[in-house]
Amino acid sequence: MGVADPKGFRAAGVPAGLKSTGKPDVSLVVNDGPEHHAAAVFTSNRVAAAPVIWSRQVVSDGRADAVLLNSGGANACTGPQGFQNTHASAEKTAELLGISAGDVLVCSTGLIGEQLPMDKIFAGTTDAHARLASGEEASAAAAAGIMTTDTVSKRAGFEGSGYLIGGMAKGAGMLAPALATMLVVITTDAVLEPAQLDAALRAACAVSFDRADADGCMSTNDTVILMASGASGVTPDVEEFTKGLTATCVDLALQLMHDAEGASHEIAVRTFNAASVDDALEVSRAVSRSNLFKTAIFGNDPNWGRVLSATGTTKAAFEPENLNVFMNGVQVCRNGGLGEDRSLVDLSGRNVTVDIDLGAGSEEATIWTNDLTHEYVHENSAYSS
Amino acid sequence: MGVADPKGFRAAGVPAGLKSTGKPDVSLVVNDGPEHHAAAVFTSNRVAAAPVIWSRQVVSDGRADAVLLNSGGANACTGPQGFQNTHASAEKTAELLGISAGDVLVCSTGLIGEQLPMDKIFAGTTDAHARLASGEEASAAAAAGIMTTDTVSKRAGFEGSGYLIGGMAKGAGMLAPALATMLVVITTDAVLEPAQLDAALRAACAVSFDRADADGCMSTNDTVILMASGASGVTPDVEEFTKGLTATCVDLALQLMHDAEGASHEIAVRTFNAASVDDALEVSRAVSRSNLFKTAIFGNDPNWGRVLSATGTTKAAFEPENLNVFMNGVQVCRNGGLGEDRSLVDLSGRNVTVDIDLGAGSEEATIWTNDLTHEYVHENSAYSS
Repeated sequence: MGVADPKGFRAAGVPAGLKSTGKPDVSLVVNDGPEHHAAAVFTSNRVAAAPVIWSRQVVSDGRADAVLLNSGGANACTGPQGFQNTHASAEKTAELLGISAGDVLVCSTGLIGEQLPMDKIFAGTTDAHARLASGEEASAAAAAGIMTTDTVSKRAGFEGSGYLIGGMAKGAGMLAPALATMLVVITTDAVLEPAQLDAALRAACAVSFDRADADGCMSTNDTVILMASGASGVTPDVEEFTKGLTATCVDLALQLMHDAEGASHEIAVRTFNAASVDDALEVSRAVSRSNLFKTAIFGNDPNWGRVLSATGTTKAAFEPENLNVFMNGVQVCRNGGLGEDRSLVDLSGRNVTVDIDLGAGSEEATIWTNDLTHEYVHENSAYSS
Repeated sequence: MGVADPKGFRAAGVPAGLKSTGKPDVSLVVNDGPEHHAAAVFTSNRVAAAPVIWSRQVVSDGRADAVLLNSGGANACTGPQGFQNTHASAEKTAELLGISAGDVLVCSTGLIGEQLPMDKIFAGTTDAHARLASGEEASAAAAAGIMTTDTVSKRAGFEGSGYLIGGMAKGAGMLAPALATMLVVITTDAVLEPAQLDAALRAACAVSFDRADADGCMSTNDTVILMASGASGVTPDVEEFTKGLTATCVDLALQLMHDAEGASHEIAVRTFNAASVDDALEVSRAVSRSNLFKTAIFGNDPNWGRVLSATGTTKAAFEPENLNVFMNGVQVCRNGGLGEDRSLVDLSGRNVTVDIDLGAGSEEATIWTNDLTHEYVHENSAYSS
């Protein structure tokens, strides 16, 4: 399932020459209605890219008719000229579709600090407009057009009672809390008001993208968009819709983690018996961001001392002598000290679970992260973004 | 200059078999008086090692007669047995010296979560006691005994008006704010009260060790100790003493950064024109901790977009359109957008300066960090700590 599967949506993805590889780099997603309701969440980075500043304004009235996306350039830190370029690309899209530029969302991803080649953007937009279509193939093309260092394109969806949710995402590194170099577009043909979309999207993001933390960095361009056409004519049960949207977002978030730059392990850091969900998140995030922990996992070393060391930097409620840590199910730390022999832990597989028992309550939360590998260093030292 | 150079101090460093390499791993520093004033600062990690818990208590009355240090084992996350072991090693030292165990500080560094082989600790302590001496050679031996992945031992000192300050340090990674797997012992023969030592030490640490941030991780064992024998008979000008102590600490901190695990660049991240020193520190620290920034520097890529991106995650006072960034003196970012051509920046040397102009005030601060390299990943995935 993808963005062009729900009724009322068309999409396309075309090569416009922004990438030197000749791969698709401009995507367009159009909502043909009858409704044009939308919601979005954006990076909390204060150095926001021009398209983020533009799109925040566009979606503020709860309406969006189209999203123009490009890879091959982030249009971030590009000053007044960068903002004019975003504006111009929205105008171009609006002109082609016969709509208002004020209803066109824009997303960009790629290198920071360079102006986009607008002739290529314009030509690509025209080309994408000519190829707009519904269904599987168009969904796949649109998802391909937003890839940067992604090795695979990401799509997901949900079939509700008489309506569909379809989504696509890009992002293969720089994943972080509150999003990160991640672009996500989700469409639905359900009948929902903007305020309902907004509430459902925020709830879904809080337990999906916000809990994926590949390297603690936060991008200037992160955007998650949800658009509803109402074309199914079905007004969904809001709880079911939120559940389906959440499942779609979790699916996409896990695909992003799976494809994170240079990772050799996918790690679920779960903190339980916490006094609050916030405490559990703080501990899981601290461990997820410890380069020492992440390199140990890369080395297949069940180094629970680094887990405790990271836990000790937080303000979460716990007593050191009550901490228990399990790695892949083996209790390597008991009551803040030595537990089972660390050699019992097999980290040779790709999936790793770390479970931290704070012994301070009954709440829990999981952060998904990756190990820190030679490939990570290689990709991020060789690839400018 | 080292810990056994100021009058009234003796030191030793011996191999006790804790390290499989047969290199020195037990060091002893003794203050023969006439005064035995001391102050210390410890890790703020809530999961503190047994020797940290012990030493905090020892120094709380402002007196310390000796410091026993070992590498080859951190004695962290070792439960009640670990604490008993620390206590026993202090008792052993006290017995040899004819002093009270309650005046013996203990420091350990190495792998977390394993009990120390106490027979080797006792034998090593006896051996070190037999070799206690003043002067250059003893200072060097003591500094060698605390090395872990350090490639060189670290010493520094200051010659005041009639008194000396001598110091040693270990730590080659895990450096972080508020200290990290770092052990530092500083001695002086000046006449100073414990409260004066405490104030001077905190002032010195705040602008030295606290501003070195290699990988954002914080150890369970960090300790900085300052002992005064009063043997020079000279009561120093407190301002001069604090200045000399600060210079000694900065010297040691820079030696630690210079030797940080697997680094190929030493980076000074300076934030200026900030509304406050705290703002400047927050920005410099955020940039210093960005893995994307650190890998870019490893790749000799003057990627100022990643500097801005990290800056944007802070709460410091600034407007994005007023930001300027200089890398090795070249203004690569002007008013939040493109500045000079990035190709003008030569990052092939070991030393890199990043200067961030917030345009929001007149305060400044610098954080010292390193790049993130293949060697870092290698050392920290292969070496357990």
